[in-house]
Amino acid sequence: MRIVEIIERKRDGHRLSRDEIAAFVSGYTRGDIPDYQASALLMAIVLRGMDDTEVADLTLAMAESGEILDLSDVPGTVVDKHSTGGIGDKVSLIVAPVVAALGLPVGKMSGRGLGFSGGTLDKLESIPGYRVDLTVDEFKQQLRRIGVVLTGQSANLAPADAKLYALRDVTGTVPSLPLIVSSIMSKKIAAGADAIVLDVKVGSGAFMRTLEEARALAVDMVRIGQAVGRKVVARISNMSEPLGHAVGNSLEVVEALDVLRGGGPSTLVDHCLAIAGEMLYLGGVAADLTQATQTVADALVNGAGLRKFRELVEAQGGDVRYVDDPSLFPSAPVIRRVLAPRAGYLSQVAADEVGLAVVALGGGREVKGQAIDHAVGVVMHVKVGDRVGKGQPILTVHARTEQESVVAESRLMRALHFSDEPVAALPLFYDRIGAADVVR
Amino acid sequence: MRIVEIIERKRDGHRLSRDEIAAFVSGYTRGDIPDYQASALLMAIVLRGMDDTEVADLTLAMAESGEILDLSDVPGTVVDKHSTGGIGDKVSLIVAPVVAALGLPVGKMSGRGLGFSGGTLDKLESIPGYRVDLTVDEFKQQLRRIGVVLTGQSANLAPADAKLYALRDVTGTVPSLPLIVSSIMSKKIAAGADAIVLDVKVGSGAFMRTLEEARALAVDMVRIGQAVGRKVVARISNMSEPLGHAVGNSLEVVEALDVLRGGGPSTLVDHCLAIAGEMLYLGGVAADLTQATQTVADALVNGAGLRKFRELVEAQGGDVRYVDDPSLFPSAPVIRRVLAPRAGYLSQVAADEVGLAVVALGGGREVKGQAIDHAVGVVMHVKVGDRVGKGQPILTVHARTEQESVVAESRLMRALHFSDEPVAALPLFYDRIGAADVVR
Repeated sequence: MRIVEIIERKRDGHRLSRDEIAAFVSGYTRGDIPDYQASALLMAIVLRGMDDTEVADLTLAMAESGEILDLSDVPGTVVDKHSTGGIGDKVSLIVAPVVAALGLPVGKMSGRGLGFSGGTLDKLESIPGYRVDLTVDEFKQQLRRIGVVLTGQSANLAPADAKLYALRDVTGTVPSLPLIVSSIMSKKIAAGADAIVLDVKVGSGAFMRTLEEARALAVDMVRIGQAVGRKVVARISNMSEPLGHAVGNSLEVVEALDVLRGGGPSTLVDHCLAIAGEMLYLGGVAADLTQATQTVADALVNGAGLRKFRELVEAQGGDVRYVDDPSLFPSAPVIRRVLAPRAGYLSQVAADEVGLAVVALGGGREVKGQAIDHAVGVVMHVKVGDRVGKGQPILTVHARTEQESVVAESRLMRALHFSDEPVAALPLFYDRIGAADVVR
Repeated sequence: MRIVEIIERKRDGHRLSRDEIAAFVSGYTRGDIPDYQASALLMAIVLRGMDDTEVADLTLAMAESGEILDLSDVPGTVVDKHSTGGIGDKVSLIVAPVVAALGLPVGKMSGRGLGFSGGTLDKLESIPGYRVDLTVDEFKQQLRRIGVVLTGQSANLAPADAKLYALRDVTGTVPSLPLIVSSIMSKKIAAGADAIVLDVKVGSGAFMRTLEEARALAVDMVRIGQAVGRKVVARISNMSEPLGHAVGNSLEVVEALDVLRGGGPSTLVDHCLAIAGEMLYLGGVAADLTQATQTVADALVNGAGLRKFRELVEAQGGDVRYVDDPSLFPSAPVIRRVLAPRAGYLSQVAADEVGLAVVALGGGREVKGQAIDHAVGVVMHVKVGDRVGKGQPILTVHARTEQESVVAESRLMRALHFSDEPVAALPLFYDRIGAADVVR
């Protein structure tokens, strides 16, 4: 099978066979197919698309490019969750331990932040000592022993995805539903979970800007997951403002600990109840979603989730004193309170700009591999729809220098819009895509 | 200007600015832009297209990637001709010396054969000693001295094209009108001629299979040439059967010498009269095409073209005894005469199959750099529309071995189709595209 013929077939709008897709993925992973041929094919895929069968074949070929974790010796239905990325998204830190505390093993491999979007690994590394580089054996052992793992992606899992993603990033071939779906789902499939809850974000702080795009992505991911025998459900959630209040690594861990202690912002709590509820329901340990959600709420109030989080941190080498006393997290040198410039209703937030402001403060990265400062960030005290009085504190900027805090304030103020008229709060979720929604 | 943004803009269907195109071409030629980004952009161009302005900008940027020959010190209008490639196309060997004999300097850089299509350089190299690697200085000096040059493409001319073509060849990005037009015209512009006659071939032995495609290519090339101040005319010619009778390197040189001696197949003679006539007319030394054609016919009969060809061979180091006595060209060891299997009219020829049969005999190449045998080939004794009787000789195969001649015979017989009903001869030309046809 000649790669040029495969490129030509996709260029001319034909569908690729399973063998052609497998030849491309394995050849590229091995290094037999050079980058310049792969990028031509990727651009042809971006512009010609792929049908459902091709996307399923591509996803499986990428998953099979490395090890596929066998978690059959972990008792119970292993559940995983995945967020498509947003601002202030600390949901994994909360739902993973809570669901594990309720008896379902949660084995999750997360990523780092890049651009406006934060990453779970960076947040976890706010806790001194926390290891995110578990081996596959450590992953399995810890999952069997305490029922929860939050670590980084193993290099052995879906290596084709890592290589293809690096190429897509520099060849203008990122925005393609077939390529996005196969990238996400190949990793999830390789990570071995039986059930996967997808949190597909849409809005100014998400990669998907329209509900239509988000729904198309959700439907495709659920379909692919089912095609390879996984239970999958997707919630389409709002990312038109940051999730919760805190944006920045240790600030978000502190907010997650608040929720695990039964407190925290109600929007964030409700978001976590929905996602954890879906995980319990999908994992078969709740009769319906209402019961599942109530069970999660109880586990937040009674501290079961917090205790499991403490166990998780301890198992992965983190300093549990930070869990017990979040005031230990180092504070940024400059804390700048920003007051409302006028009275009115918060009507709109350019959430990506909030994310980029935190990157500029040093809390995220513009290019891979950049070091970050875990202490900096922004806490937003208002949500869309809230009424503010002139001079009321609306933001707190945590910065390394006075100068950086001033720059952040001005950038953030441009990202917030106020209205004289009352504005409705944003919904948390827009839609739910389950098995019944993707029947072919 | 970031290359990824340029790729993204073309991917999203936008037109690229002159600066963006120039940044791509110069960056790629210098090696600052890697192959994998160039191939992604090429695929986006294949699938999104380019408008007339973009094609003109791309052509000029490629021409300007290297030296542009300054032929202003060559007296008279320097004319060039270009064929888009076909089977048995030895027209350059005839028209270049004839037009030069009639007073117009002809400076032409040619290519080698690849795939089913032959190349003028390979044909010329049938003549022992003939050099096709003239330097730019030698090119200019010879053009001033004897008024004709037939050599290979200088590496200094349009280096962007050579690099891009090599990449297109392995990334499925060859068939794109903007890329084909800019590839051909950038080289023609860099080669410095004032006037260019294009022989755009269409049919089973050409890269363009439909008249519509050929006409689009011709219109674009004429338009680009005019946009950069060249006089250009295109003839759209038939390539649904080999041109003339001979296919194979020295066999074609011998046929060209026949024409230069006032003989040769009438279809080939008429084709050369038309192309050389256009060159004379475009070069301003003939009042009209009819007069131009008659002048060329005279120069074939009175030997002026042959004498100029002999001068050309001598100037480029070739052994002129082969010009004086074509029987000196070495003959292939096996000469197999193929007889008509039935009576009837030759109705159709898969011309590309004839070309590939000659490649298989060793007379062409499947990949660049392959050595070729100049003696092998095929002579077709019949043209479409000719009546043949059963057992009449229709082909002669010149092969290295008996076995190869048998394989070629069977392949060639599958490429020929006969009919019981009379069939019309094929036209030589379908259309002529001149300045007036491309007014914007």
